[in-house]
Amino acid sequence: MDTIAYKRRLGETKMTAEILAVGTELLLGDTLNSNAQYLSKELAGLGVSVYRHTVVGDNPERLETAFNEAFARADVVITSGGLGPTQDDLTKEIGARYFGKKLVMDEAALKTLESFFTRTGRVMTENNRKQAMMPEGATLIPNNNGTAPGCLIQDDKRGKTLIMLPGPPRELNPMFEEHVVPFLRARTDGMYVSRILRLCGVGESTAEDMVKDIIETQTNPTIAPYAKLNELTFRITASAKTEKDAHILMEPIVAELYNRFGDHIYGEGKDLSLAGVVLNKLIDKKMTIAVAESCTGGLLASAFVDIPGSSEALIEGFVTYSNDAKIKRLGVSKDTLDKYGAVSAECAKEMALGVASESGADVGIAITGIAGPSGGTDTKPVGLVYISICLDGKVTAQEFRYTGNRGRIRGRAVMAALDMIRRALI
Amino acid sequence: MDTIAYKRRLGETKMTAEILAVGTELLLGDTLNSNAQYLSKELAGLGVSVYRHTVVGDNPERLETAFNEAFARADVVITSGGLGPTQDDLTKEIGARYFGKKLVMDEAALKTLESFFTRTGRVMTENNRKQAMMPEGATLIPNNNGTAPGCLIQDDKRGKTLIMLPGPPRELNPMFEEHVVPFLRARTDGMYVSRILRLCGVGESTAEDMVKDIIETQTNPTIAPYAKLNELTFRITASAKTEKDAHILMEPIVAELYNRFGDHIYGEGKDLSLAGVVLNKLIDKKMTIAVAESCTGGLLASAFVDIPGSSEALIEGFVTYSNDAKIKRLGVSKDTLDKYGAVSAECAKEMALGVASESGADVGIAITGIAGPSGGTDTKPVGLVYISICLDGKVTAQEFRYTGNRGRIRGRAVMAALDMIRRALI
Repeated sequence: MDTIAYKRRLGETKMTAEILAVGTELLLGDTLNSNAQYLSKELAGLGVSVYRHTVVGDNPERLETAFNEAFARADVVITSGGLGPTQDDLTKEIGARYFGKKLVMDEAALKTLESFFTRTGRVMTENNRKQAMMPEGATLIPNNNGTAPGCLIQDDKRGKTLIMLPGPPRELNPMFEEHVVPFLRARTDGMYVSRILRLCGVGESTAEDMVKDIIETQTNPTIAPYAKLNELTFRITASAKTEKDAHILMEPIVAELYNRFGDHIYGEGKDLSLAGVVLNKLIDKKMTIAVAESCTGGLLASAFVDIPGSSEALIEGFVTYSNDAKIKRLGVSKDTLDKYGAVSAECAKEMALGVASESGADVGIAITGIAGPSGGTDTKPVGLVYISICLDGKVTAQEFRYTGNRGRIRGRAVMAALDMIRRALI
Repeated sequence: MDTIAYKRRLGETKMTAEILAVGTELLLGDTLNSNAQYLSKELAGLGVSVYRHTVVGDNPERLETAFNEAFARADVVITSGGLGPTQDDLTKEIGARYFGKKLVMDEAALKTLESFFTRTGRVMTENNRKQAMMPEGATLIPNNNGTAPGCLIQDDKRGKTLIMLPGPPRELNPMFEEHVVPFLRARTDGMYVSRILRLCGVGESTAEDMVKDIIETQTNPTIAPYAKLNELTFRITASAKTEKDAHILMEPIVAELYNRFGDHIYGEGKDLSLAGVVLNKLIDKKMTIAVAESCTGGLLASAFVDIPGSSEALIEGFVTYSNDAKIKRLGVSKDTLDKYGAVSAECAKEMALGVASESGADVGIAITGIAGPSGGTDTKPVGLVYISICLDGKVTAQEFRYTGNRGRIRGRAVMAALDMIRRALI
């Protein structure tokens, strides 16, 4: 995929950036480097190529090396962290050194800082004053959510830009959006627009095989597949002068993907979830649903309840982990349990029928399986799951075989159940 | 903290490591590099110093450069990602090159792979075979949760070790714990031993204030607090020649923490969960439980079912999101719903009583609340949650007020319910 991005560079001059996070807490694993993800996503949308993320600790020598290395490769280096008041906070000092600049007191920054302390009723220490020191000639990036302002140093002769932002995401994110985005947008050509297609019921490697030829021949738009639990997404990204042109470029590829994957594609969008799609389909059709769960134990009901407005379609859920509960709540027959066991297509069907008739819901869905780690046999191994759906009085069941730990098996079973409902409603 | 780690280094030769994550999806911001945090935390516990994290894309030249740079600085390089079946997956090939090794087919890995595909009923493509190719002389690290095995290359002459693991955390984490930890432990001087105290029912900043004085004065053992949802952990780490010595060093600090936090500490251990502790307490007391959920919609039942053996105590669960279901399944009175509303202590109590008597369980627990984003009023804002417990015929309820999004409010409510059961059973 990177290869494609590189090819793209041959056709147009793309700005390249690296992200340098500074902080020993990151290297100790005490803090997650979520800034790198946030900045990468934003930069991708601006058409800036990110070729590397680096994390170094609060150590002056190692930080200086990292600056030199990053600028040897990239046009823009964006740092997060190390702008605070303690002596460990060195990013500005070392960053300025790369440009041959010294830190000087920025009176505007100092004033803002002083008013921040007055406003919040906190005492400003001598240490805090340090946060108003800026590299000579740098552009101040105000911080409305914390004490450490950021700054931007630009050296047009060398074609290098350094953007330094504080570590906390609630400070970094608005500063990036308000000040860095306009700066970068003015310096990048065209736009990058993405569409995200969401798939289910198809394996990652099967899906990749099915689009290999397109991925290999396409440079604009590009197609990138990502897998997560039982779900797969394709991100199609086009670069063009306008948003409309980018959409026109994507259209034939997207059409081809719909052609190849048909109803494996359950929707489009970044924040779409399969549970949300199913729930909205039920609401559109004015249909209700009730859920009976054994091995997933409430996870499917919870996936629905996670969506605001779920009460419009979800009548109720039963966690019938024990045989007794299956008999008492859902009317599963003792005969079926004796003859086929609780993990069987027969039991799943009686559960689905039972939950539909007991609740009066239009759709009854039931999951029973062996999530492990124990409880498996040769004929019924860990990972064996039966899912049954009852719709318009018709009951069908499907068998699934999963691998992985208890959590993964349960998660996959929930996704498969959602997909089964979705397909039944098409 | 770097200062402390550095001081420690003066006394003993510490092994140094770097973490290299491979994948264009990380550079596009589509995936969060949580592996770097996980590995850093684990390595810190083993007394291995991590001086840098790097992320590069699926590009052979840039990957090779990153390998060379990392090995120029560190004894051990641990990679995540790029071991999959597609042509973008290059980590093994490029990693082997650093050691002057070629990839050869590993028959054992191939066999495992073939049986994985047979077991899951999936078709093995030619691409998939590539995953069984290993650098000559490498030690295979089996993957029980996915198709891509990892491997370890050791060059004792140069004193360099390369450990390559797959990207998905559910695969990487167990592989690291089962295979990499013993390897590193055998090669590090002295020992780092940790105890993890798990707390609930106390806020992060309150807890941090309560241990600030200990954290500031201690260098061995160290205390590191971590917060996650409604739960907080303290990791106490001592370094010593033997495990016994490390435990002796930790004992007074741990005793002081128990002294300060009392029954907010619900247990010790890395993999302990509050649901597990509650479940085991119920099993020990030969008690059963049944669950009634409104806004959490199955999340509490699911937290129990997530624990193997939960069927010994969990009788059943009801997801009674609608008023009708609360009346029909749990016998909540229409009067109560009219007078106090579904989100009230009164309703919660009737739900708890109802679920206990309906199921015959020793403990009935019920959650009702407003998870948002809509549905809040001035008197009943989003985040208002009532939890009630029925034990030995006695019913009590508690009010909670949470902030955050729907998922966070639901998660916190589940932790609070578990904590309420735990305290009731003490």
